[in-house]
Amino acid sequence: MSGSLVIGDWGNTRLRLWRLENGAVAERREGPGMVHTADPRGALPALLEDWSAEQVILCGMAGARNGLHETPYVSCPTDVAAWSDQVARFNLDGRKITIAPGVAEAKDRGGRDVMRGEETQIFGAIAHDPRLATGHHLFVLPGTHSKWVRVEDGQIIGFNTHMTGELFALLETSTLCMAAGEATNDDDDDEGFSAGLARSADGAVLTAGLFEGRAAQLLDGKSPGWARGFVSGLLIGAETRAQTVSGPTAVVMIGEPGLTARYKDALAHWDVKGTVLDGEQCAIAGLRLLYADD
Amino acid sequence: MSGSLVIGDWGNTRLRLWRLENGAVAERREGPGMVHTADPRGALPALLEDWSAEQVILCGMAGARNGLHETPYVSCPTDVAAWSDQVARFNLDGRKITIAPGVAEAKDRGGRDVMRGEETQIFGAIAHDPRLATGHHLFVLPGTHSKWVRVEDGQIIGFNTHMTGELFALLETSTLCMAAGEATNDDDDDEGFSAGLARSADGAVLTAGLFEGRAAQLLDGKSPGWARGFVSGLLIGAETRAQTVSGPTAVVMIGEPGLTARYKDALAHWDVKGTVLDGEQCAIAGLRLLYADD
Repeated sequence: MSGSLVIGDWGNTRLRLWRLENGAVAERREGPGMVHTADPRGALPALLEDWSAEQVILCGMAGARNGLHETPYVSCPTDVAAWSDQVARFNLDGRKITIAPGVAEAKDRGGRDVMRGEETQIFGAIAHDPRLATGHHLFVLPGTHSKWVRVEDGQIIGFNTHMTGELFALLETSTLCMAAGEATNDDDDDEGFSAGLARSADGAVLTAGLFEGRAAQLLDGKSPGWARGFVSGLLIGAETRAQTVSGPTAVVMIGEPGLTARYKDALAHWDVKGTVLDGEQCAIAGLRLLYADD
Repeated sequence: MSGSLVIGDWGNTRLRLWRLENGAVAERREGPGMVHTADPRGALPALLEDWSAEQVILCGMAGARNGLHETPYVSCPTDVAAWSDQVARFNLDGRKITIAPGVAEAKDRGGRDVMRGEETQIFGAIAHDPRLATGHHLFVLPGTHSKWVRVEDGQIIGFNTHMTGELFALLETSTLCMAAGEATNDDDDDEGFSAGLARSADGAVLTAGLFEGRAAQLLDGKSPGWARGFVSGLLIGAETRAQTVSGPTAVVMIGEPGLTARYKDALAHWDVKGTVLDGEQCAIAGLRLLYADD
């Protein structure tokens, strides 16, 4: 791997770019997410700035309908070979652009699911650790739209998405979290998270659990920080329980340290062990798999 | 009942006032909800305008901490006598003001629940229909914070709140409902509602169900109207199922026609019969119970 190569993960809320030199990351840069980019093709040169990138490899929303170039989803089951066969390659402003396809699943009971970007992190994790290339593994990639991905002998065989991060952000503006005006502190937040987690164990319907958090503020003087923690515990508790109730005892977690720590706590509540991999390292490893020296 | 009497339900989002003449509603007026009223005491005279109200009876958020005058909650179980004993009475600008208390419940498994205003509608419904004064009845009052209230021999014995309306309003601003920019139509909306209702029957975790609605937009070209209906079906489906799964075959519904129709459809999905009472009539009947001719 040589020459001037830039790889990147263009998510809905954030763009991350890495410039590689002789195969190693030489520089790192962030930019606006796809939802904040009206004209991705026009925006790319400015985002690359002074980097002389002969080849650019992107995953995530770069391949979405409103992205850089629509790249169809690959269907489950898929392995790294089938997936990388389906990349889009084209020239733009004198650069060779490669865009990773997303992955789609049609569920047995009807309904469908999609991902864009997480598959790259998973294939990166597998490439990085040969133990993940054989046997059955359950991955979770917490975030705006959390993905729970089943991998068997290196193939993505199915997955489920939870809109947890987005719902949490919406609920931060609700009467529940806004009710009292006091400052918050981390202790309150952690106590609220534990209370929400415990409540999710009863299988409470979310809309009912949420109002209990509000009543606790009105009657017991709980702080907004406590309420935010409670909402987080309710949502992550319900999600982790639903995805592990059928039996897995270990989950591979890919993501940012703060969020994976919360998921790890929630998984421990259900006696499931979470092993954390760094999201950025997995993305870089996955994008490098798509490098073509031609 | 005579003299110049005004009764009203001051909710979070809306104030409804009725001027009575010889016991009958002579005029009706709406005003801003409590969350939009910085100084309720100062605002009241202007809201009453030209109405010469010697006595004003209010329920709802008028008795909240940030309302007209904080009126403590009455604890469950409570009947109309115990409840009306706990009203707050005071003079303001030469008027006799009466404020209905809300009702609170401490749940057996911990956690608490509160209502302000719905108890007035329930006691009004019971006063209006003697059949509701004996035996066991399950009431639902759909709305921003839906209340499911168990009544036995005229006593409110317990209740559960679902933050359904508020969560729906938040989700209308999510990527799910905003994804496509097309105009919506009612057919799409109804079809989406049925799909969401059906999905809730599987006991899907809400965060997972929500994303399926988004995937249906991306892959199957479903409209924003369909997505809104789907979210509504998911939320109301989960709520009605949770509240009726233990066996009731009939529910008394109090509320606005549009929303009670949706709840009635959802209840029918679980083979539960819903009987609809008009929310405004119930509020008026309940407030009249608090009239004191002294």
